[in-house]
Amino acid sequence: MQKILDTVDAQLETSLKRLFALLRIPSISAQPAHHPDCRRAALWLADLLTDMGFTARLSETAGLPGLIATHHAAGPDAPHVLFYGHYDVQPVDPRSLWHSDPFDPQLTEGPNGRRIVARGAVDDKGQVISFLEACRAHLAVNGKLPVRLTMLLEGEEENGSPSLPELLTNERATLEAADFVYIADTNMWDAATPAITASLRGLAAMEVRIHGPNRDLHSGFFGGLALNPIQVLVNILGQLKDARGRVQIPEFYDGIVEVSPEQEQAWAQLGFDTAGFLGGVGLATPAGEADKIPLAQIWARPTAEINGIYGGYQGDGSKTIIPAHATAKLTFRLVAGQDPDKIHEKFAAFVTSHLPPDARAEFFPGAAAPGYGLNPNAPFLRAAQKALAEEFGKPTALIGCGASIPVVEAFKTLLGLDTLLAGFGLDDDCAHSPNEKFDLACFHRGTRAHARLLAALAAGGST
Amino acid sequence: MQKILDTVDAQLETSLKRLFALLRIPSISAQPAHHPDCRRAALWLADLLTDMGFTARLSETAGLPGLIATHHAAGPDAPHVLFYGHYDVQPVDPRSLWHSDPFDPQLTEGPNGRRIVARGAVDDKGQVISFLEACRAHLAVNGKLPVRLTMLLEGEEENGSPSLPELLTNERATLEAADFVYIADTNMWDAATPAITASLRGLAAMEVRIHGPNRDLHSGFFGGLALNPIQVLVNILGQLKDARGRVQIPEFYDGIVEVSPEQEQAWAQLGFDTAGFLGGVGLATPAGEADKIPLAQIWARPTAEINGIYGGYQGDGSKTIIPAHATAKLTFRLVAGQDPDKIHEKFAAFVTSHLPPDARAEFFPGAAAPGYGLNPNAPFLRAAQKALAEEFGKPTALIGCGASIPVVEAFKTLLGLDTLLAGFGLDDDCAHSPNEKFDLACFHRGTRAHARLLAALAAGGST
Repeated sequence: MQKILDTVDAQLETSLKRLFALLRIPSISAQPAHHPDCRRAALWLADLLTDMGFTARLSETAGLPGLIATHHAAGPDAPHVLFYGHYDVQPVDPRSLWHSDPFDPQLTEGPNGRRIVARGAVDDKGQVISFLEACRAHLAVNGKLPVRLTMLLEGEEENGSPSLPELLTNERATLEAADFVYIADTNMWDAATPAITASLRGLAAMEVRIHGPNRDLHSGFFGGLALNPIQVLVNILGQLKDARGRVQIPEFYDGIVEVSPEQEQAWAQLGFDTAGFLGGVGLATPAGEADKIPLAQIWARPTAEINGIYGGYQGDGSKTIIPAHATAKLTFRLVAGQDPDKIHEKFAAFVTSHLPPDARAEFFPGAAAPGYGLNPNAPFLRAAQKALAEEFGKPTALIGCGASIPVVEAFKTLLGLDTLLAGFGLDDDCAHSPNEKFDLACFHRGTRAHARLLAALAAGGST
Repeated sequence: MQKILDTVDAQLETSLKRLFALLRIPSISAQPAHHPDCRRAALWLADLLTDMGFTARLSETAGLPGLIATHHAAGPDAPHVLFYGHYDVQPVDPRSLWHSDPFDPQLTEGPNGRRIVARGAVDDKGQVISFLEACRAHLAVNGKLPVRLTMLLEGEEENGSPSLPELLTNERATLEAADFVYIADTNMWDAATPAITASLRGLAAMEVRIHGPNRDLHSGFFGGLALNPIQVLVNILGQLKDARGRVQIPEFYDGIVEVSPEQEQAWAQLGFDTAGFLGGVGLATPAGEADKIPLAQIWARPTAEINGIYGGYQGDGSKTIIPAHATAKLTFRLVAGQDPDKIHEKFAAFVTSHLPPDARAEFFPGAAAPGYGLNPNAPFLRAAQKALAEEFGKPTALIGCGASIPVVEAFKTLLGLDTLLAGFGLDDDCAHSPNEKFDLACFHRGTRAHARLLAALAAGGST
């Protein structure tokens, strides 16, 4: 292993040259004018992988192509890893806030050492190249990789991955042979602490409209006698949670796995700066379930959130009406074990059960994606935790993410594959923002950690 | 009295000629192009009153002039009545829905007999002329009126009465000498049942904005931990009323006079068609205070009505945010005894007392007008009830109005005068709508009722 790590260290300068070459290609998938650049980035990567000994090809879709590359010299008994990354980047607007050309990568001095500054520095070109440089070191030392590796690099991730289902379906034969997916597009807990994201929250979106009278009424002539649908709506939504923040929809929590005391204790030891996190947005007090620690509230617990509400008069001054209807838009963040379609039904039943006479509720179910939770006993997870901990000299944090990563859901749904999420970004990397950066130390140690991880997966990571 | 009533009957044809002449003047106060017509209507009425023996003059304001006329031949011991009416009318839009020229009055056959069709037929030219024709009959028989009469005819009532306070202030010396105000701009209970409107609801308008985080947040990353101001708003407004419809703002009902069992029984006997009233707007079930009869709910009980609500995302689909703030617009309909400014304060205190940590409420108080309730023992009220009952052969209904009539409040506030509201319109008269009409029977019997009322007020109606 030490020889491989030494190789990573020795090749750092050329690794950066390769990364910078890729960063110079403005592969902005959201902007059709840049689609030729996207294709150029895919071809550049295909050439790079071919030079490294991979079998690489583009896989065409209705949109931008995916890049499929395989290196299976490890033989049929080695674990089969599917690495997913993306070669496209976010738009650069507002350009004026950048201190340098977003597509002329710079190595500048930052408060925590040198940093790579460019659009895509961390998201996801830097992380992809970091992983490939770890492969390069293994190949240089051993002539082969310790695992069978299939790579899928997508070109539309920053544009909502419209062709991903098509890509996964077209390439099913190639992809579903893998044991699990490995994605390096997430962050460390902090600059010193490696992290694996072991759970993601899903989503069930729902709009509800309460109908009352068949037209807006004069609140002088009808007020006091006629049903007010805004009042009905707030009465019902006012019962959505109890005083301790627990969602009151019957059977809402059915099927979910409670956070274990060990996990909660491990999170408590991460030293999450609740005051800083909330203080940054003008708040001070956790407003979720009173009996859960803050990290559990945002990572591991489902929510019922009213994202929007409207009804009646919204202009200046006042208008004395009882409106015909009132509407609320909600999203439920879900955790593993909850079925988004069932959540739609349970919410509708909750609302319906609270309707007074004459009120009618209309429901518009929206997006529905289940939550994701990695099996904490998965062997590849243990192996990865150990590898990262060895590189950083600190236990690997098993963290959650309160939002969704749609590709993880797609791999699970379409290919039945679990995903290992281990990346080396930091929260201050400005992904999607001007002056995106990737700390050189994160790139370098991330490459070393990837190298260790490949070896660890080979030793004990097969599922 | 019979001689006076006979005179009313005998002059009916000429009464209509005079009304039609006034109806031909398109005195639309909302449209500046018609302001010369408004002034022409005022001058036409001044001439009419002068011919009848009144002392009449225009009283200029920043807007359209008021018309002041007095006939005090009854002497200092007679009651002093201030009659208020208005010579302006509503616009006619949409003109295309009229079956005849709105300013070419027609006497047409309707399902309930002949009707006068024109803009202003009932609101308020027909009712004003009806009253003046009653005066004319008294003058013809006795050479004088039984009461001291001061008339105030306004020209901006249909445009929000912007100059009324100026007019009342300028004419204070003339007007405040009256014992009470008499307005004939309301309706009968039905075509057979005369009515006096004895109470009006006031209004306190209030906007409340709940602030949470200092910007819209990503509900994936913050949801479950961060305060959601929409949730706070619905939690609070969901507690506005209890399950029986009673407003839960502390001290909300303090100071109001409960409807007496006698009054409630009298209203119950009016045979209000609750099912028809609610059915016309798609409802079936009274939604107000469960222990009050429907007419009390709309006439005599204060309300807390949410007229509008908004916050967060309101476009198509969903947006996964926790918004920075959420807003509701409310109006409270008030009854006599409630102070609108105090209601503003009580509501603000109610909201504030329910705020969780980190939530901040901002209040924007709006219109504030007290409710109005006529003293049920006022002698002029008893006299008027009796006079109307005699004309129609049926007890006079003492009804309420759930909305406000701003001039009544102005007379009370600026001049300290109570108002007798007795008019002869019907609910199907299409005031403010195309094809406005006044049933000839209502005009005729209204004139007779006015004649009886003048006599009755002289006999026992002084306060």
